[in-house]
Amino acid sequence: MKAKIIITPKKAVLDPQGKTVQQALEHMGYRDIQAVHVGKYLEIELAGSDREAARKAMEEASHKFLSNPVIEDYQLVIE
Amino acid sequence: MKAKIIITPKKAVLDPQGKTVQQALEHMGYRDIQAVHVGKYLEIELAGSDREAARKAMEEASHKFLSNPVIEDYQLVIE
Repeated sequence: MKAKIIITPKKAVLDPQGKTVQQALEHMGYRDIQAVHVGKYLEIELAGSDREAARKAMEEASHKFLSNPVIEDYQLVIE
Repeated sequence: MKAKIIITPKKAVLDPQGKTVQQALEHMGYRDIQAVHVGKYLEIELAGSDREAARKAMEEASHKFLSNPVIEDYQLVIE
């Protein structure tokens, strides 16, 4: 099984890295870019086959440890 | 439209950040973790409605500029 976790800054939080990428893309000639958000991606390979237990554990780890829920959102997918 | 880009280190490339997260998770009591890969996630909001042009531009930007194709892979999704 794999857990895929995408962690992004909340929309209300300043995202200077996103802003920098946006400016760089515009500078390189890419038009039509309205906003860029930069986040983290984690892929966790899991042994075992209990999908629900894995989801629960990874949900807890994402919330408590892998993201900062004050300023970040996360999306978790178990595959 | 949105372009979502996931950039990960190639499997053959050392991923010390992934290793650190793996050890930390194990230390916190999470079992059954076989590997962790850490990458970047970019979400680019695009004006315009030409999906194919957007895909082409973002594909080029991902390859040339947003990722390092020598050591990284990327996945691009246009939504």
